[in-house]
Amino acid sequence: MPQVKTFWIIGGDLRQEKLAGLLRADGHRVHTYALGEGEDDLTQAGRAECVILPLPAQGPDGALNAPMSESEHALEEVFAHLSPRQFICGGMVSAQTAALAAQRGLTIHDYFRREELAVANAVPTAEGAVQIALEEMGVTLHRARALVLGYGRVGKLTAHRLQALGARVAVAARSWEALAWADAYGHDAVPMDRLGDALGECDLVVNTVPARVLTRELLSRLREGCLVIDLASKPGGVDFQGAAELGTRCVWALSLPGKVAPLTAASALRDTIYNMLGEYS
Amino acid sequence: MPQVKTFWIIGGDLRQEKLAGLLRADGHRVHTYALGEGEDDLTQAGRAECVILPLPAQGPDGALNAPMSESEHALEEVFAHLSPRQFICGGMVSAQTAALAAQRGLTIHDYFRREELAVANAVPTAEGAVQIALEEMGVTLHRARALVLGYGRVGKLTAHRLQALGARVAVAARSWEALAWADAYGHDAVPMDRLGDALGECDLVVNTVPARVLTRELLSRLREGCLVIDLASKPGGVDFQGAAELGTRCVWALSLPGKVAPLTAASALRDTIYNMLGEYS
Amino acid sequence: MPQVKTFWIIGGDLRQEKLAGLLRADGHRVHTYALGEGEDDLTQAGRAECVILPLPAQGPDGALNAPMSESEHALEEVFAHLSPRQFICGGMVSAQTAALAAQRGLTIHDYFRREELAVANAVPTAEGAVQIALEEMGVTLHRARALVLGYGRVGKLTAHRLQALGARVAVAARSWEALAWADAYGHDAVPMDRLGDALGECDLVVNTVPARVLTRELLSRLREGCLVIDLASKPGGVDFQGAAELGTRCVWALSLPGKVAPLTAASALRDTIYNMLGEYS
Amino acid sequence: MPQVKTFWIIGGDLRQEKLAGLLRADGHRVHTYALGEGEDDLTQAGRAECVILPLPAQGPDGALNAPMSESEHALEEVFAHLSPRQFICGGMVSAQTAALAAQRGLTIHDYFRREELAVANAVPTAEGAVQIALEEMGVTLHRARALVLGYGRVGKLTAHRLQALGARVAVAARSWEALAWADAYGHDAVPMDRLGDALGECDLVVNTVPARVLTRELLSRLREGCLVIDLASKPGGVDFQGAAELGTRCVWALSLPGKVAPLTAASALRDTIYNMLGEYS
Repeated sequence: MPQVKTFWIIGGDLRQEKLAGLLRADGHRVHTYALGEGEDDLTQAGRAECVILPLPAQGPDGALNAPMSESEHALEEVFAHLSPRQFICGGMVSAQTAALAAQRGLTIHDYFRREELAVANAVPTAEGAVQIALEEMGVTLHRARALVLGYGRVGKLTAHRLQALGARVAVAARSWEALAWADAYGHDAVPMDRLGDALGECDLVVNTVPARVLTRELLSRLREGCLVIDLASKPGGVDFQGAAELGTRCVWALSLPGKVAPLTAASALRDTIYNMLGEYS
Repeated sequence: MPQVKTFWIIGGDLRQEKLAGLLRADGHRVHTYALGEGEDDLTQAGRAECVILPLPAQGPDGALNAPMSESEHALEEVFAHLSPRQFICGGMVSAQTAALAAQRGLTIHDYFRREELAVANAVPTAEGAVQIALEEMGVTLHRARALVLGYGRVGKLTAHRLQALGARVAVAARSWEALAWADAYGHDAVPMDRLGDALGECDLVVNTVPARVLTRELLSRLREGCLVIDLASKPGGVDFQGAAELGTRCVWALSLPGKVAPLTAASALRDTIYNMLGEYS
Repeated sequence: MPQVKTFWIIGGDLRQEKLAGLLRADGHRVHTYALGEGEDDLTQAGRAECVILPLPAQGPDGALNAPMSESEHALEEVFAHLSPRQFICGGMVSAQTAALAAQRGLTIHDYFRREELAVANAVPTAEGAVQIALEEMGVTLHRARALVLGYGRVGKLTAHRLQALGARVAVAARSWEALAWADAYGHDAVPMDRLGDALGECDLVVNTVPARVLTRELLSRLREGCLVIDLASKPGGVDFQGAAELGTRCVWALSLPGKVAPLTAASALRDTIYNMLGEYS
Repeated sequence: MPQVKTFWIIGGDLRQEKLAGLLRADGHRVHTYALGEGEDDLTQAGRAECVILPLPAQGPDGALNAPMSESEHALEEVFAHLSPRQFICGGMVSAQTAALAAQRGLTIHDYFRREELAVANAVPTAEGAVQIALEEMGVTLHRARALVLGYGRVGKLTAHRLQALGARVAVAARSWEALAWADAYGHDAVPMDRLGDALGECDLVVNTVPARVLTRELLSRLREGCLVIDLASKPGGVDFQGAAELGTRCVWALSLPGKVAPLTAASALRDTIYNMLGEYS
C-alpha cells in the first residue's frame, strides 16, 4: 500500500464505487465524480496525486463511461481539469481517448494492460464459469467430463477449479507447451486437431479461445445434454446459429468479474493501481 | 447391475422419472404409475421383481406421494396389487405406511436408510451449497474465509469443495475425533465452544448441524456482508427471526440433490436399489 | 492447553523426548525418568498432576518400555511411586500392566485408544507411504495408477494424498458405504470382489487392511514393476513368501509416524493428553 | 506416435536405455551404440530415419557422452557415419558439437530447448523435491509452512504439490504477474523484497531461482530446524558456506528427473522427439 494519497475516481460503475470504498478503508482521501450520488467539485481534481478513469475509459459514444451518472460528460471537459503532474490511469483506453489526453499533455496509464490484473480477473471469471455449470447442468460436476478449450489465463484457472470439484477435465490446446502444462496440472491433454473425438464424451465444454473454434460441425458431435459455456469475448467462439439449430445448450458469459464478484474485482483493481503507483514514483 | 428385471415405479417426482429412464437404459423393463403421462395397468404390478415407491413414500396427506399425477392414490389401493414375493422399496417410509403394508404381508425396504445413498446424496448437496455461495457472495470463494458447522457427510464434502476452490475453511465440531479429521483434511479445526470467536472473521458460514446452533447472539458476531447457508432440515439451524432482525443474509436450502442434479440423484438411487437387490436375492 | 501443570514422563523413545520439549515450550514443569540422560528423582513423581507412560507402556519383556535407558525398570517399581490422585496415561496398555496398576489403586488411561490420536497419526502414516512410493517407483506418482486397499483412517488419507499428487487412485473396500465415500472424494470405487481385475493396471498398491488380502494368486496378477506397500500391522496383509517367489517388490512399513515425523507424532500425543486432562478434570 | 521408424540411440545413460525400450514397445526398430552391452554396427546408422544423441550430447571432455560405454567415442567418429537426410537430435548441444556436426552438413535439433520437455521434466523435479522434504523434515508437510522461491516451471509445480499435501505455501517472486499467478493458485504471494520477513516462519524453503538469492544474511533469519532444498543449477542459489557456518540444513538437488523417475523422464523424451519428428516431416 502506498502512503496516504488523494484519489479522484471519475466515471465508472459498481466496481469503481466499491473501489472508492476500498481506498477509503485504506485511509486515502477519495473524491468521486460522475459515479452516482454526491459529486465532488471537478475543478479540484487536478490537485490529487492519482486520477482513476473507468474500464473502459470511454463509453460507446466516445464520452466518459459513466453509466451511474444521469448526465453525459465529455472527456475533453474532464481532461481540462487534470494536470500532467498527476498519475492518471484508466482501462481499455482507446487511441482517440489517448490522443485527446495527449493534446493536454496528459498520459493515461492503462491498467487493463497490466498482466497481474488480467490474472487476478481470471479468478472470478473461472468462478463464474463454475457457477454457470452448477446452475445449468442436470448432473453434478463431480464425476462429470469437462473439456476446456484453450489454456491461457482463464482456461488454466477454470480447468483447475472444475477438476477440484471432481470433474474429469481435458484441455484442448494448440501448442505442445500448453499441452505439457495441462498434463502437469493433471488434466488430459488433447491436441487441437483431435478435438472432434474428445467432444463426444463431454458433459460440459468451456471455451476460452477468442476465435470461432466451435463450428457447427464440431457442435454436432456433442452428446445430448452437453452444456457449452463460451467465455470468449466478441464475436465469441461458438457458431451460435448452428448451436440454436442443433438445439445445443449454450451460455455466452461476458464480463464475469464485475458481475459475480464486484468486491473482488474492485480489490484487484486497487492492488494493480498501487503497483503502478509504486513503479511510477 | 443385476440381471434384466421388471420394475414398477409407482408415484414420485422428477427423480423417479429420471430413474425410469436410467433403468430402461440398463435394459430393464420399466412400468410407471402415478408418475405423469402414460400410466401402465396397476393390476399387473404384482408380477414385477421389484417395485419402487417414492421418496418420501407417502405425501403429507398420508396417500401415495405422487406430485406428478393429477389424481390422488390411496396406499391401500397400491398395496392391494403387490405381492409379498416381490422386492418392494421406498424412501422415508413412515410407521403408518409400513403398518399398512404389513397388513398385506408386504415389507417395504427403505432405501433412504442406506448409508451409501446418504453419502452419494451429500455430493450434490455440497455442490448446491457451493452454487449458492457463488451466486450470493460479492467476493470470490477464492481467498474467502468459510466456516462449516458440523463435519458429518454434508459438512465433510462441503468443506472439501470450498477449500478446493481456494477458500480458507474452518470446521466447527463437537468431538475431538471430528476435529482431528477436519485437521487431517487441511481445515482449521474449531471446537464448538470457541465458535463465537471464529464467526467474526467469516465471509461465509455453512451450517449442517440439525439443531438451532446459530442463535441470535452468535449471528450478531458475524461481520457485515457475511452469507449464511443453512443446509439443516426442519426446523433448521438458524434463528431466522433473529437473522431477519439483524439483517443477516441467510439462505435456507433444502432437498438440494433433486434440485441441483436430478440425474445424478436418480443414478444414486438406481445404484442403491441395485445394491439392495443384490443383498436381498 | 490446560493450566500449567507438573508432568512426569517415564520411559519411552524419541517421541517421548520430543513430547517433553513440547510440554516445556508450553510452560509446564516436566520431569523425565528412564528417558536417556539426566534422570529426575522418581520418588517425587507422585506429586505431579500427570504421569505419562510410553507407547506401548510395557516392553516385550513386561518391564517398562524404556529403550533409551541403560537399565531395566520393573513396572511395579514405577507404580510404587505413583498415586491414585494423579492422572496417569500410557499407550497400548496390556491387561497385565493394567492389573499391576490396579493392585495399587492406579488407573492408566490409554491414549492409544483415543480416536483423535489415531486420526492424527494417520497423517504421518499417509505421508510415509507417499515417501516410500516416491523413493521406490521408477515412474512419477503423477499419472501413475494407484490402488488403495481399505478405506479406514490410513486408507482415506493415503488415497487423498496420492490423488493430490496426480495419481489416478482406485479404492477397494468391502462395504457400499466405504465405496460411496471413496467415490465422493473422487476415487474410483472397486468392490472387494472385483479386486483381481483392478490389480492388473496398477503401478502402486497400498494395503491398509489388517488381514491377508493380497494372496499369492492376487499378487500374480500385478504387472511387472508394480510396487506394493503394506501398512497393515502384524502379520501384514501380503503373502510375503508368495511375493518373494513371484519377484514382486514389496515394502512392509510399520510405525511410520514416529519414524517419518517424530515431532508431529509428539505434538499429536501432547494434544490428545491435553484433551484427556480436560475431560478428566 | 509417428509411423514405424528406425531409430539409432548413440551414447547416453539409464534414461536413453529406458527410451530404447519405450520406442521398441511402440513397435519401432531401435539400434543402440555406446549404451552398455550389445552394440550395433555404427556404419549402418546412416540409414535410420532418426538418430538420438544423449543429454548432454557431449561429455565434459568433449567426446560423446557415453557413461555406460567402456571406451571413449569421439564425436567426429560418430558424425562420420550420419547423413544430412536424417533427423538428428540431442540435448544441451554445445556450440563446438554443433560446429563439428555442421562440418559434415549435419544439423542437431536440440530437444532440451523444447518447452514441452522442460515442463514435463518439471514434474519429476517437483516430486523429487517433495521426496527430499518428506525424508529430511521432522514434521509432516501437512500443516508445515513452506516458501518456494521463484515461480517458473519448477516453482509452480513444486508449490502446487506441497500445497496438495497440506502445507501452507508462500511463493516469493519478483514480478507482479508471477505473484498474481501464485495467488490465483492459492499460495501466499510474497514480493521478493519482503523475503526476509517471510523466511522466519518457515519449516521448509525450496529455491528454484538460478541466482545466489539465499545469502548468509537471509539464511540467518531461518528458524532452527528449517530445511532448505536448492533446485537451482550450478552455482546454486544458496550461500553454502554461510549455511554450513550457520548450521542450516541444506540439500542441493540436481538432475532429479533421471534420478527419481527414469522411466517417466524417458517417456517425456520420447514424446518430445515424436513431436519434433511430426513438425520436421
